[in-house]
Amino acid sequence: MAQIIPLEQPAKRNINAALDALAALVASDVSAVNQLIVQRMESRVAMIPRLAGHIVAAGGKRLRPILTLAAAQLCGYEGQRHRKLAASVEFIHTATLLHDDVVDASDLRRGGPSANALFGNEASVLVGDFLFSRAFELMVEDGSIDVLRILSHASAVIAEGEVLQLATTNDSTTGEQAYLEVVRAKTAELFAAACRIGAVVAARPSSEEEALRTFGLNLGIAFQIVDDVLDYSAEQARLGKTVGDDFREGKVTLPVILAIHRGSEAERAFWKRTLEDTDHREGDLAHAQDLMHRHHALRDSIDRARHYGAIARDALGLFADHPVKRALLDIVDFTVEREY
Amino acid sequence: MAQIIPLEQPAKRNINAALDALAALVASDVSAVNQLIVQRMESRVAMIPRLAGHIVAAGGKRLRPILTLAAAQLCGYEGQRHRKLAASVEFIHTATLLHDDVVDASDLRRGGPSANALFGNEASVLVGDFLFSRAFELMVEDGSIDVLRILSHASAVIAEGEVLQLATTNDSTTGEQAYLEVVRAKTAELFAAACRIGAVVAARPSSEEEALRTFGLNLGIAFQIVDDVLDYSAEQARLGKTVGDDFREGKVTLPVILAIHRGSEAERAFWKRTLEDTDHREGDLAHAQDLMHRHHALRDSIDRARHYGAIARDALGLFADHPVKRALLDIVDFTVEREY
Repeated sequence: MAQIIPLEQPAKRNINAALDALAALVASDVSAVNQLIVQRMESRVAMIPRLAGHIVAAGGKRLRPILTLAAAQLCGYEGQRHRKLAASVEFIHTATLLHDDVVDASDLRRGGPSANALFGNEASVLVGDFLFSRAFELMVEDGSIDVLRILSHASAVIAEGEVLQLATTNDSTTGEQAYLEVVRAKTAELFAAACRIGAVVAARPSSEEEALRTFGLNLGIAFQIVDDVLDYSAEQARLGKTVGDDFREGKVTLPVILAIHRGSEAERAFWKRTLEDTDHREGDLAHAQDLMHRHHALRDSIDRARHYGAIARDALGLFADHPVKRALLDIVDFTVEREY
Repeated sequence: MAQIIPLEQPAKRNINAALDALAALVASDVSAVNQLIVQRMESRVAMIPRLAGHIVAAGGKRLRPILTLAAAQLCGYEGQRHRKLAASVEFIHTATLLHDDVVDASDLRRGGPSANALFGNEASVLVGDFLFSRAFELMVEDGSIDVLRILSHASAVIAEGEVLQLATTNDSTTGEQAYLEVVRAKTAELFAAACRIGAVVAARPSSEEEALRTFGLNLGIAFQIVDDVLDYSAEQARLGKTVGDDFREGKVTLPVILAIHRGSEAERAFWKRTLEDTDHREGDLAHAQDLMHRHHALRDSIDRARHYGAIARDALGLFADHPVKRALLDIVDFTVEREY
């Protein structure tokens, strides 16, 4: 008799439920990785575990390391090397988050900063550096030059993507292609590397390595696009962050790009004022959301995300049926369809 | 006939001359490293080579990569691997400089920032991350797990040292031991690693690896102590930076610690007001310098530096006479005795 899960429909739009299901398949690995993370953020310098713990706890989902664990299991890997590598991936991600939060004095004057508000820019930068170094120490302990190559390259690409994003921020002429390059570099490259190293530790043929890389890359793009949509559409309480942050920071994301390209001259002047001149007035966010609805910018952004999701799904085609494979496909669906 | 160099005496106090002499012994390597540095800071993201070029050009001395090249030559190494590793060391150093310059909003209000003033905090952080990742990519190309282990560990220690320094800044109760731990971590560890990997590429016995590590570590400590002295005593034009920066930033360095420990209650109140409460008045820097002279704090700090210099010199004892060895010993002397 087939399994009937009547709760599936209501849960469908919650990516956390899908991730929990995937995590359950690699449960002992996940708890080992969590232990490693706590152990390896230790330092005789007390501020380091305090600040790192704050952000690691806040990060919560552990999506990227779980992808490494799942990919390794899908490849039939039975050792434990993937645990250190998954912790390493999470450290790189956490370091990126900490550095993302560093703000310029100008930003402080404009809006409010987040994690670094508690500890200061300097501490955020330095603890990020520490975690980044620890990530490499973990990889060195593993000893695979292939893994080191993949993750050091991913780290350089992420940094490039972040710089590129700086250049597109407050530039309302940013096009969809430039946006995609930012997303691919700053978000998708680490998803791709996280998945790929699962095949590397399992010593699988390059076709499987490539398939998992493709899966991760396209899942990552879809994930970021939906994230950018949710910044305009989510229910605030569910999102766990403030709706409209991107708008206030002048980030030119896909929904904005579509609205600008489909808008009138007057509308473009509105986007220019709010995103470039950062001259914000009462009701601007609501007006931005209204323009997006009028031009179907949110719906069509999700459509674009669905496209990348489809590529991710097909990439797993060459793997035989397996509970992990099914859970990974669910992650794709839930990523695209999620409401938070 | 023995070489007579009548200019030696006047040049004695210029570390740049000593470094030039060392660099001349590894001249073809130095120019190859300079080329590598320019090549590997390339990126399709234009801001990266622009900002990185700014700081790499400003860095100038290339002390750390030259140490790697010199150590390798002293060990009889005849290949080219040390070039990529020297570039990697310089990238780690440059990334650290960029991240050092990141300031809090509070700092901006107080004084003026430096490199990041031109490009902003965010860009400084991200380009630093990029260079750091590139450093690891260079090491991965080299392929030595031993080198990766040494430099990833050094990077983690540097970050710890920087965080520790944050904790001691504006704390006038910081003691000499805490100061030494900061110096050892934030400065000396990279000197040590830079020298040590020279022996690693040359596949020399661990005694030579250890000797070069000891040389670098103690040279690095001496170098930083003298740097901290010069911040109160140098001729501004020669130093190339503003005298009194450490004082204004509330950094508790060795000359300050000695002056505080040897001072009266009234003097300690002065240090507390200026360093902790950062309540600065006209004439405070001159008064601080006066107190240091009165308590021989600068002279005795140099004495402490001389101690570490002596350890560095002795570490080279097990190497046979060699032009590079002599030049390295000169570097130690010039580091301790330099006026800028």
